[in-house]
Amino acid sequence: MKKYYLLAPGPTPLPPEVLQALARPILHHRTPEFEALFARVRGGLRELHGTRGEVLILSGSGTGAMEAAVVNLCSHGDRVIVIRCGKFGERWAEICQAFGVEVLALDAPYGESVAPERLAAALREHPEARAVLATQSETSTGVLEEIEAYAALTRAGETLLVVDAVSSLGVVACPMDAWGVDVVVSGSQKGLMCPPGLACIALSERAWARVGRADLPRFYWDLTGERAWQARGQTQFTPPVSLLMGLDAALGLLRAEGLADVYRRHARLARATRAGVEGLGLGLFAKATPSPAVTAVVAPPGIDGEAVVRAYGEAHHITIAGGQGEMRGTLFRLAHLGYVGDFDVIVALAALERVLAGLGHPVDFGAGLRAAQKALEEA
Amino acid sequence: MKKYYLLAPGPTPLPPEVLQALARPILHHRTPEFEALFARVRGGLRELHGTRGEVLILSGSGTGAMEAAVVNLCSHGDRVIVIRCGKFGERWAEICQAFGVEVLALDAPYGESVAPERLAAALREHPEARAVLATQSETSTGVLEEIEAYAALTRAGETLLVVDAVSSLGVVACPMDAWGVDVVVSGSQKGLMCPPGLACIALSERAWARVGRADLPRFYWDLTGERAWQARGQTQFTPPVSLLMGLDAALGLLRAEGLADVYRRHARLARATRAGVEGLGLGLFAKATPSPAVTAVVAPPGIDGEAVVRAYGEAHHITIAGGQGEMRGTLFRLAHLGYVGDFDVIVALAALERVLAGLGHPVDFGAGLRAAQKALEEA
Repeated sequence: MKKYYLLAPGPTPLPPEVLQALARPILHHRTPEFEALFARVRGGLRELHGTRGEVLILSGSGTGAMEAAVVNLCSHGDRVIVIRCGKFGERWAEICQAFGVEVLALDAPYGESVAPERLAAALREHPEARAVLATQSETSTGVLEEIEAYAALTRAGETLLVVDAVSSLGVVACPMDAWGVDVVVSGSQKGLMCPPGLACIALSERAWARVGRADLPRFYWDLTGERAWQARGQTQFTPPVSLLMGLDAALGLLRAEGLADVYRRHARLARATRAGVEGLGLGLFAKATPSPAVTAVVAPPGIDGEAVVRAYGEAHHITIAGGQGEMRGTLFRLAHLGYVGDFDVIVALAALERVLAGLGHPVDFGAGLRAAQKALEEA
Repeated sequence: MKKYYLLAPGPTPLPPEVLQALARPILHHRTPEFEALFARVRGGLRELHGTRGEVLILSGSGTGAMEAAVVNLCSHGDRVIVIRCGKFGERWAEICQAFGVEVLALDAPYGESVAPERLAAALREHPEARAVLATQSETSTGVLEEIEAYAALTRAGETLLVVDAVSSLGVVACPMDAWGVDVVVSGSQKGLMCPPGLACIALSERAWARVGRADLPRFYWDLTGERAWQARGQTQFTPPVSLLMGLDAALGLLRAEGLADVYRRHARLARATRAGVEGLGLGLFAKATPSPAVTAVVAPPGIDGEAVVRAYGEAHHITIAGGQGEMRGTLFRLAHLGYVGDFDVIVALAALERVLAGLGHPVDFGAGLRAAQKALEEA
């Protein structure tokens, strides 16, 4: 028998309540029943975003919502500041460049982050920058960026703060209104515990004012038309109805647990994972604040990170993630976001001990598990 | 007890096999298991498109795939010919205009179609036109456009034929290679019997050659990158995995029935629906070839088409569709595509008799049903 485990940073495992919702007969999207569902989901998303503004639901992946942010906020030739310390920061820059938006990149080496002081200096030097594009949880390196500090810098000026929260929404707080974040984009397949295919974008009032002046071409991702439709309880184009039914169930689970407890659970599982990894003598890839969504582990000397990923899959039927791009082989990533609890961390670490031993790395069996158990008891 | 029926032109009812597939634990998209699924689905889609070329799978609605076609095939200032005789032909034009592509519209009144001779004349007058954009099944009016005849005109020249087959794929044949169609776009929630959220685009070799020269800005919908990823068995961005699992099940059902029989079933149900409608003395909105996907019915004098739609829903828990845009109130639409059989037609017509009577229209009870039964027996 093969018993599978999914411990990668998205798609994440689906709760049975979400699976059951997906299997329900579909609703038509121009019916009162759909409108009731849609209103409930949008209300739940507003709560999750900490905003009294609107959260729009799009049919696409998180990258689609990132593109929607760029084409609705920018004009050709505009300048934006991109916080770039991983593959998803790089994606912000690639999207901008594809649409003729000039990128002023604030780079940090993989595993590090951009200090707010560097952003402050860039904003002083480039008051004309239309937006700062950041990534709350940089999934490729396991680093959490300092969104609250960035927002404290942008909210006073004319530059908008746009945050990719694809792997952080429902994992760590990003209260838009309280912090003064202008735009948050996300996807369904991470902390929202749903299948991929549904994306969200939330905009502050000052971001909406910018949308009216942005001249980049757009149709599918045009948020002005979408806003009018969604205010009436429907979407402009056919929405991913089944995924919305799943999201309704997932938001119910998050509400029942309570958001503060959801965030505490993720922080606690991340701490236990890090303790276990360090208990085995392995190093963390993140030198800056680690993300509560995913832990990137440096492959020990002589061990290929990709071999670790393969061994997890082949020997133990566990899907984890490797390193992306130039990080391939140098690290592997254990995710702990979404529908996960204490014993998922234990499974990940029990397998890690055996994977490393199988690859010829000296392992003190139980050392990782012991450290994790202590962290879980203390938390 | 309320027993619901979904008889609208998308989303369409989901077969139990698809619902069960949606409820299965999700796969990660960078695993051998996903690659096997993806290869199977792409093979099934190639068969359905009648092409030896590639069919790419995108995360988005059918409109997203339409936008993908435009931004990958056209440059700013290009001219295209749009066959425009309904809301979806109008959508082609709107997408082009949003991206600075000049539209030469071949218009026909709602309910009619554009004769191939008019397209032939337009192609002679505008040999510079980059593409002809057409809609195989114009869902808003219930008209089937003459794609084979259009293709006979375009395949000889330099102008590409791009077809919106969102509501016709898996309903009526559109063999790309045999007819010489260059691009076909579609969505998952019609003849493919899946939830919305997954879109497909298939391109001929000469369409691919055009992609390299098109300068419209694109990132999320960029097909060049996507083609390279999908040739390796994965997608560039996170795909809608659960919907792909559902599509795999749906393609299995279509294969088991046999495509020729699938098309015969749809043609037969459409004929029976039309017979029933005419048996009640009502008129068909389509003056041109009627679509096998949906029948648009002219609301009888003194009866508001929207009141018919509401009565279907409120009195009988059946979702049908009304008229879009300026057609609102003048017609209503009964769909017969996807997971539908003889008795769905019977249900639609039995309800129609009672809906009309309820609205004060004189009805010879059973006249619509009798006509439909005869048509089903004869077919």
